[in-house]
Amino acid sequence: MNLPEPTPERARSELAGIADPLSEDDDLVVAYARAIWSCLVEPGDRVAGALIATCGPVRALEIAVASTGGADVAHAAGLEPRELDKARSRWHPRRGDVAERMAAGRRAGARLVTPEDHAWPERVADLGPFAPVCLWVLGDVDALGAACPAVAMVGSRAASAYGDLLAEDLAAGAATAGVAVISGAAYGIDGSAHRGALAVGGATTALLAGGVDRPYPAGHRELLERIAAGGTVAAEVPCGSSPTKWRFLARNRLIAAMSDATVVVEAGWRSGSLNTAHHAAALGRPLGAVPGPVTSASSAGCHRLLREVQAECITSVADVMELLGLDARALNARTVAEASQTGEQGAGDLTRILDALSDRSARSGHDIARRAGFGSDEATALLGLLELEGTVERRPGGWVRARHRAAATLW
Amino acid sequence: MNLPEPTPERARSELAGIADPLSEDDDLVVAYARAIWSCLVEPGDRVAGALIATCGPVRALEIAVASTGGADVAHAAGLEPRELDKARSRWHPRRGDVAERMAAGRRAGARLVTPEDHAWPERVADLGPFAPVCLWVLGDVDALGAACPAVAMVGSRAASAYGDLLAEDLAAGAATAGVAVISGAAYGIDGSAHRGALAVGGATTALLAGGVDRPYPAGHRELLERIAAGGTVAAEVPCGSSPTKWRFLARNRLIAAMSDATVVVEAGWRSGSLNTAHHAAALGRPLGAVPGPVTSASSAGCHRLLREVQAECITSVADVMELLGLDARALNARTVAEASQTGEQGAGDLTRILDALSDRSARSGHDIARRAGFGSDEATALLGLLELEGTVERRPGGWVRARHRAAATLW
Repeated sequence: MNLPEPTPERARSELAGIADPLSEDDDLVVAYARAIWSCLVEPGDRVAGALIATCGPVRALEIAVASTGGADVAHAAGLEPRELDKARSRWHPRRGDVAERMAAGRRAGARLVTPEDHAWPERVADLGPFAPVCLWVLGDVDALGAACPAVAMVGSRAASAYGDLLAEDLAAGAATAGVAVISGAAYGIDGSAHRGALAVGGATTALLAGGVDRPYPAGHRELLERIAAGGTVAAEVPCGSSPTKWRFLARNRLIAAMSDATVVVEAGWRSGSLNTAHHAAALGRPLGAVPGPVTSASSAGCHRLLREVQAECITSVADVMELLGLDARALNARTVAEASQTGEQGAGDLTRILDALSDRSARSGHDIARRAGFGSDEATALLGLLELEGTVERRPGGWVRARHRAAATLW
Repeated sequence: MNLPEPTPERARSELAGIADPLSEDDDLVVAYARAIWSCLVEPGDRVAGALIATCGPVRALEIAVASTGGADVAHAAGLEPRELDKARSRWHPRRGDVAERMAAGRRAGARLVTPEDHAWPERVADLGPFAPVCLWVLGDVDALGAACPAVAMVGSRAASAYGDLLAEDLAAGAATAGVAVISGAAYGIDGSAHRGALAVGGATTALLAGGVDRPYPAGHRELLERIAAGGTVAAEVPCGSSPTKWRFLARNRLIAAMSDATVVVEAGWRSGSLNTAHHAAALGRPLGAVPGPVTSASSAGCHRLLREVQAECITSVADVMELLGLDARALNARTVAEASQTGEQGAGDLTRILDALSDRSARSGHDIARRAGFGSDEATALLGLLELEGTVERRPGGWVRARHRAAATLW
């Protein structure tokens, strides 16, 4: 029960609708080989990663599906001969599943993104041989964050109202500033982070543990459809794969690896999001945690991170930007400058928003939009910019102008 | 108007009820000189501190009250001749207040504690020439914490219910563990910290900015009486002194210096307690801050400390004890670092096998190997391990997950 040879013709027909139909034959064969690889391995298969890195996915696949041989490549890849034999014994039983998985991908309308694509998030290369062989994607591949800063926002499924509010606010603020928000589509914090980014029309990616054709959790089917429409739903396992516990853990490493920084918004003492935080720290990526009441069990995990691994204390969108190494004010200034250079009245727009605000009483976004003569979405985006700049403040009832504050130092 | 000479007879009569009547003459004269010094200087008078350190309080006082001379001692103390002249010009006008201040001390029933006493908190020596020359005390001098660990618990006057609760809880816990709780008797956090320590019969010291005969704030008169009854009310300024702004700042340095560690329980962005935190950091003493909701302005100062000066995140009494370097109890919970080290490959492999099993229907070893992505031999070995552990069960048709399996850790 061997796999059919990955000829250009076969690659073209198998990847119809999945890869770019205008691709060169060689590129299609490489993509096809990677797609097959994703069907044979569990996420983070080091032997597969080492082989592919050594001789490319096509040759590596030939070696993988053969019964013997390939000792020279395995040696060059730094593998013991026994490791290749052992790997074959776990890859071969899955050869029969490949055709089914590819068909499931076509049915779901999934796209294949590989390291050869411009949309590939290069950051994952830091995983070395544990990096994914490819990604299966629904939606806008640009939301994977290859071309912009990306932040992972994760946390407890059993989030409090406080945690959900913060996740939504921080994600909306980061997305407004042009940062892609990466999360895991789980109930609680993950979902709120995606919602916050979607609310401002920002880029967001939901990384799933199972195939992208299997909305998980089921109660987030509608949210996942919205993410696929406005951002990206992605997975390293092919369509038809179920979300097992192992794959959740592997998915967590990928959330961290795809992001420039990870923020744990709310987490209990043993929250799975601490696992994502651990991966971020292991990758040397900046790690932040949002504090909460010490009387709240929902924040105990965040406080652990602050205490035990010296995570940065995150209290605002500006803190998130600082964690990413981005100066929120400079970013904003550039935006305004760009806007004025292109004659888009960017500065004028901000002035109009400021004019529509009060110093004392909070006004709703809707009210401000009306007073300033903007659509609600446009007003929300502008308010987000001004919030980053510290010129306006969010209050329970809406927005107010910030009192002028000197850039106070602590002492 | 010069001061009368500090003879043993005069010292004994002036310090009647204030110092130990059984003291040796020499000790009484030293104590008397220090009491006089406290009437002449503002807290933290470096010139006074340097002179006293060089030639002792009695000789230093002679030099201080003289119109000229003492250049040799000043030189030995590292002072410029001009500094001594300038200091005299600020000390001399107060010579006429000494008798009155001493009388006020006797009326208030205050006790004098000096560096020569066993009850003197040696920690304040770290202030060098800025250390107090003596302390005026109401209550149990042992609550000054000379013989036990001491923690400063400070924070905003405008505390939230959350902050008050935490201050009381943390202070009660620390006091129960034998730690003296030092604070400033202000409304809000300070008061709650004292109350928490008193509630468990623990040691607590209220350091006042004015004289101990002037309860401040007035609304804490009753609380200060309770502190004097169960702990200590102390000040470095003599009785009859009013609490000026300068003395508040000086008092803050003393709170930090009298404590092994400082914890800011709740503080706004510009809270005066950040000043105490600064002194603790400058003295190289451990500094902790209790986080709160990032939406609460009352916690903004604590979050600043966590972000800007890397204060330790304090969430519990155990954290306070750790800040003090005291191993109060062996923590049951593993640290994040420890837990992360147990994420061995083996645990992950077992998780993958468990993922491939069903709770209900038995699956063959071959089927399980394919689902989990292992060779058959490897799967069989892992299943054997899990069987030994009681996590899986062998059935006629293969293997099932056991009903009551231990929850796996995520790390």
